[in-house]
Amino acid sequence: MKMTMTQKILAAHAGLREVTAGQLINAKLDIVLGNDITTPVAIHEFKKAGFTDVFDKDRVTIVLDHFVPNKDIKAAEQSKTCREFACSHCVSHFYDVGKMGIEHALLPEQGIVTAGDCIIGADSHTCTYGALGAFSTGVGSTDMAAGMATGMAWFKVPSAIKFNLTGKLPENCSGKDVILTIIGMIGVDGALYKSMEFTGEGVKNLSMDDRLCICNMAIEAGAKNGIFPVDDITLAYLQDRSEREPVVYEADPDAEYEKVIDIDLAKIVPTVACPHLPENTHPASELHDIKVDQVVIGSCTNGRMEDMEAAYSILNGKKIADGIRCIIIPGTMQIYRECVERGYVTAFIDAGAVVSTPTCGPCLGGYMGILAAGERCIATTNRNFVGRMGHVDSEVYLASPHTAAASALTGYITEYKEA
Amino acid sequence: MKMTMTQKILAAHAGLREVTAGQLINAKLDIVLGNDITTPVAIHEFKKAGFTDVFDKDRVTIVLDHFVPNKDIKAAEQSKTCREFACSHCVSHFYDVGKMGIEHALLPEQGIVTAGDCIIGADSHTCTYGALGAFSTGVGSTDMAAGMATGMAWFKVPSAIKFNLTGKLPENCSGKDVILTIIGMIGVDGALYKSMEFTGEGVKNLSMDDRLCICNMAIEAGAKNGIFPVDDITLAYLQDRSEREPVVYEADPDAEYEKVIDIDLAKIVPTVACPHLPENTHPASELHDIKVDQVVIGSCTNGRMEDMEAAYSILNGKKIADGIRCIIIPGTMQIYRECVERGYVTAFIDAGAVVSTPTCGPCLGGYMGILAAGERCIATTNRNFVGRMGHVDSEVYLASPHTAAASALTGYITEYKEA
Repeated sequence: MKMTMTQKILAAHAGLREVTAGQLINAKLDIVLGNDITTPVAIHEFKKAGFTDVFDKDRVTIVLDHFVPNKDIKAAEQSKTCREFACSHCVSHFYDVGKMGIEHALLPEQGIVTAGDCIIGADSHTCTYGALGAFSTGVGSTDMAAGMATGMAWFKVPSAIKFNLTGKLPENCSGKDVILTIIGMIGVDGALYKSMEFTGEGVKNLSMDDRLCICNMAIEAGAKNGIFPVDDITLAYLQDRSEREPVVYEADPDAEYEKVIDIDLAKIVPTVACPHLPENTHPASELHDIKVDQVVIGSCTNGRMEDMEAAYSILNGKKIADGIRCIIIPGTMQIYRECVERGYVTAFIDAGAVVSTPTCGPCLGGYMGILAAGERCIATTNRNFVGRMGHVDSEVYLASPHTAAASALTGYITEYKEA
Repeated sequence: MKMTMTQKILAAHAGLREVTAGQLINAKLDIVLGNDITTPVAIHEFKKAGFTDVFDKDRVTIVLDHFVPNKDIKAAEQSKTCREFACSHCVSHFYDVGKMGIEHALLPEQGIVTAGDCIIGADSHTCTYGALGAFSTGVGSTDMAAGMATGMAWFKVPSAIKFNLTGKLPENCSGKDVILTIIGMIGVDGALYKSMEFTGEGVKNLSMDDRLCICNMAIEAGAKNGIFPVDDITLAYLQDRSEREPVVYEADPDAEYEKVIDIDLAKIVPTVACPHLPENTHPASELHDIKVDQVVIGSCTNGRMEDMEAAYSILNGKKIADGIRCIIIPGTMQIYRECVERGYVTAFIDAGAVVSTPTCGPCLGGYMGILAAGERCIATTNRNFVGRMGHVDSEVYLASPHTAAASALTGYITEYKEA
């Protein structure tokens, strides 16, 4: 057999000894996920198809995160639809206001997803959980509906690109700089319907938060999924939180890859994706003349504890530049609470930032920091398409928490350098 | 002379020895206030009228509080208009994201308003500052525009109703129960274009936050303004914060009132205004069968430190009832920071609540907790008109922070009783 890590997981979930790229398979799902935007559509399809029961009340996960606490009447109706469905089907993993967090920060934190899982979510950044050694991918609401009812989904087995990581990141870089560099290198369709399999001796130098960030943005290169091998760091992360036993899959030594790309982590520099595509990357150091109006630190890409730590380390005791709005959004209630306990929230307020309750909010132009015409934001989010964060004539620059926080202090795009 | 306290302030600001109810006067303004909704309209009128300068850059105050961090593109454009105007006119009191708070919590806290002032604000709850012994009233955006340019405004001198307060509030009651009781008594037009002058030996038993809450809702009885005498509590509050010297005005001993109403504070009970008018008041104890979906603690009425203390004292160590969303919104960044420092935010999170960055948000159906059809909210806000917090088929019950917090724990409207 010569299967990639992704193919190994898919084969196991399809009950097949072997699968090959391009093959259509029907695979067993460990987790089916939806949020407050996509779940109501899925519920509608679920009912229209005549389904009456979910396949497993503990395997369907519904997270209200995009527009809660409800931003408008439509959001309120969507939340209500989710709430009533979750209640009537006794969905055990239903996250409402007060328990909520950004889904892709929440599911790993709460131990809902684990290594070896086959996961679908009606949200494009569902690919995040590849960081735990799971196969995980975004689907449409109709697939979510079918998945909720049957616990199965059809997939075309993807081929893969192997990213061979070596070395160790500089202090002012994180997983975000790695994935932005890669997307800059291969383009937004560089991994179209392929797996991005990260491997090599450099993996051990990447924290779990780095890996989650890297896999999160696999979709921005068009990938079906991103995935990391399971190592001691993964197992340590899963140990006290995973609800189910992790299952470890490894790529066959002779697995076939469409391409192998070597990445020396030591050579990564603080990287920014300029408007209006994540592939339009430049070193932060070359963008010093670009003035920003707003800074957003958060999202499913960079709303985790290490991201908050980075922001704190840079903003603590400092003042945000005049005229700059800086919005910090911890990814989950647990992260938010930890930021309070560690004194980060006080430091953020003293620096002149605001700290929002966990939400996807500004990332997708939802609320909590929408841009007017001509305004420019540097954000740790994942997409900088035209109008993504507001007006069609606004601009989003994607960056790491280090770069975003450093930019908040100057008002211009700024490469963070340790004092 | 036989002038009310309000008339004394107006006479002084009009440069007149005496004024009488019904008289039209042109008065000098100490502060002209606008927010992110009303200021853009005022700026438009200001420019249309050919004005080029503000009368005093230190006396024009612009606070972004309704829809910031920007909830949508329109809000972003409104904020931008305010920001550009404030910048080009060097407005010293401009409160943007990171400095902002709910205007009527912010202005007293920051010492921008003081005793003896004559204040207009393009927001109906501008009457709040009467608690400091100021004349303060809400106006339209056109009046704001003229006020910003000339530092003057026309008023028809109001007659007054005198509220003679005696006794001391029970432990589970606060200023909110006083004003709800009064509105229930006199109706939403019970003080139409009149001053509500609070006086009597009971005043000394009301904290500054109680008084601010009471004056805040004077407009809900149709009043032109609400006002408290200046006493040691007022002066102590103003001492370390007021930018300008307080000026103390007192009603003449033989001032004429349309009516005198006696209120024994000791007889006040926890009071709730049921849909859909603030006058539709009932004792909380009679509403125990009313189930709620959401609890909101905040707003210009009840987002101050004592309100947060009340919520903390009730929620600390407890759990919010299943299925209830509880949204707590400190009124200003300073209050928010204090809630973090005192451990309130941690306690709120542990109880299952969320804590929002300061905003008017849900009170006016803006964002941060909008209701779906059929949903019911108990809120410490000030208006429960049809559709005020969302869908036209939703309901808002107005109450004190004590009652709202106690209701969050049970899921039903609940009178708080000390353990």
